[in-house]
Amino acid sequence: MSTRSKPNSPIRETDEGACAVAQQIMNDARTAALGVIAPDSGWPQVTRIATVFVSGTGLCTLISDLSTHAAALRANPKCSLLIGDLPERGDPLNHPRLTLQATAQGVDKGALRARWLSARPKTKLYFDFADFRILRFDIISGFLNGGFGKAFDLTPKDLLHPPE
Amino acid sequence: MSTRSKPNSPIRETDEGACAVAQQIMNDARTAALGVIAPDSGWPQVTRIATVFVSGTGLCTLISDLSTHAAALRANPKCSLLIGDLPERGDPLNHPRLTLQATAQGVDKGALRARWLSARPKTKLYFDFADFRILRFDIISGFLNGGFGKAFDLTPKDLLHPPE
Repeated sequence: MSTRSKPNSPIRETDEGACAVAQQIMNDARTAALGVIAPDSGWPQVTRIATVFVSGTGLCTLISDLSTHAAALRANPKCSLLIGDLPERGDPLNHPRLTLQATAQGVDKGALRARWLSARPKTKLYFDFADFRILRFDIISGFLNGGFGKAFDLTPKDLLHPPE
Repeated sequence: MSTRSKPNSPIRETDEGACAVAQQIMNDARTAALGVIAPDSGWPQVTRIATVFVSGTGLCTLISDLSTHAAALRANPKCSLLIGDLPERGDPLNHPRLTLQATAQGVDKGALRARWLSARPKTKLYFDFADFRILRFDIISGFLNGGFGKAFDLTPKDLLHPPE
């Protein structure tokens, strides 16, 4: 993931269209593949998490303290997220998806309760369990793979929603 | 991801049912979320790859040497894969998915050409490009999250298909 477009680089220069696609993927994301570093072994570990994009806060997850990925994030908050639905047909590698580099930070669960449960009502079954907390992902960088020949490096600013 | 079931552990004792679910997920996987360690920064990085389970060889991907994840695997073959489709409805975290810890190894692309193209005919457009190669994932361990309260640690042997 180089910075911006360079001669002979497969990375295109970021434009408004790329930012809009990436913002839409983030806004629509119901789950993500979360990559963390396992604290015992140093290996990467990828698991599925639930996500909600909360305007004014950012991309969030509801996570149990008892999970291995939560333990990994406590030891090392550096993580990566892959988001973007698979297409119903066609080559899935020619369909847009977004890789984020981020750090995970705890946020006030009570303050986001209504927003989270409005977006994910089925999680009401366990939202209030004491071991569940909400983490916010602070984005360091993004990489949009919009399909063949459509790759873009993105900054946190590129991923901010435009003023409504 | 501890070893096998322990008192007070959320990990259940592995049984044939868990192995069968995990094998089915591996067999059906068309894509995976691949987690690697970025060589420049040491951060985890998760991207989408195409996968085919090849009987007698294992879980394979077709990958371009020019991709950032291919470069990361050349520097460090330790990786993780998340596989398992999302459900059409219901809480996605109550639906089975499999996390693998693996190392990536190059294999003979020509020998797997017919098998790969039979499974993924749309990739014929680029299969023969010189920068594309097939990698095989040698599994170190697996973690099946079969839904709430249904977590299992799996060995490579648990993930082997039974004799047909």
